[in-house]
Amino acid sequence: MSTHSPLAIHHDTVRPEWVDYNGHLRDAFYVLIFSFASDALTDFIGLDETARKTRRRSIYTLEAHVNYLREIKEGVQVRVDVRVLAYDAKRLHVYFEMFKHDAPEPIAVSEQLLAHVDTSGPKTVPFDPDVRARIEALAASHAALRNAHYAGRVIGLPVRSTK
Amino acid sequence: MSTHSPLAIHHDTVRPEWVDYNGHLRDAFYVLIFSFASDALTDFIGLDETARKTRRRSIYTLEAHVNYLREIKEGVQVRVDVRVLAYDAKRLHVYFEMFKHDAPEPIAVSEQLLAHVDTSGPKTVPFDPDVRARIEALAASHAALRNAHYAGRVIGLPVRSTK
Repeated sequence: MSTHSPLAIHHDTVRPEWVDYNGHLRDAFYVLIFSFASDALTDFIGLDETARKTRRRSIYTLEAHVNYLREIKEGVQVRVDVRVLAYDAKRLHVYFEMFKHDAPEPIAVSEQLLAHVDTSGPKTVPFDPDVRARIEALAASHAALRNAHYAGRVIGLPVRSTK
Repeated sequence: MSTHSPLAIHHDTVRPEWVDYNGHLRDAFYVLIFSFASDALTDFIGLDETARKTRRRSIYTLEAHVNYLREIKEGVQVRVDVRVLAYDAKRLHVYFEMFKHDAPEPIAVSEQLLAHVDTSGPKTVPFDPDVRARIEALAASHAALRNAHYAGRVIGLPVRSTK
């Protein structure tokens, strides 16, 4: 892992069954690719399949915000980068960016709040020290990065809001 | 459609291929169910498959915020309600709630910003008058509803944010 750059956590290819009636990757399948990236991040911090079963631990998604920036079609290769924006004893605030091939601008981004869970509850529990150490190292490697442009967003329209 | 209640726009059942290694509906497949609900809403406002092809119009998702509130397993029947929070000439701000059977509290919610698109561009264009009229009627039927509890949220943790 290079210092001060997002971690390329997942690579994928747009499958035929992920394309909607417009011929483009359906919104939910951008999220599936981000979900695979989240699985890979879970492995990366030390909670691979064996550890999840032995320790009865897992990572659950509590909340996700997704911005769909560009359309892509079947067969396109994508890469997902991740950075850790913040964390506390039990939770991770992460920022995923999806890129088409090696294009410089993302085609979609997702900001997510993830929880560390004891699956025998299930209930949220603190990260074990070894996992926490990996999260600290990953977050430190991202600390000098530019702002996460699509993080912190609220959805709204100026007209006729009922809220 | 009853007055002053959300519209039950989609019903579904959790499929085996939607369940993750925890035995629960994977985060991306909550979003797929919301995506089917968005398709049904698109039909409901007058843009069914024939109209989409004839008029070269469609609805694209620009942004989605999802809160995962409860786990559900394979075989569970769900219902998605929708309400229109706001709209302008080209966009819809909608609020989906997913319920298990007839339980009173949602298992997931998604706030979304949708755009009306000329697919020959693609570019966002104003709704046609007939579609706009259906949106107005739907939004009016929701105007007296209680607040959308999970709308307008920002993701954040107090500790170590790099933003």
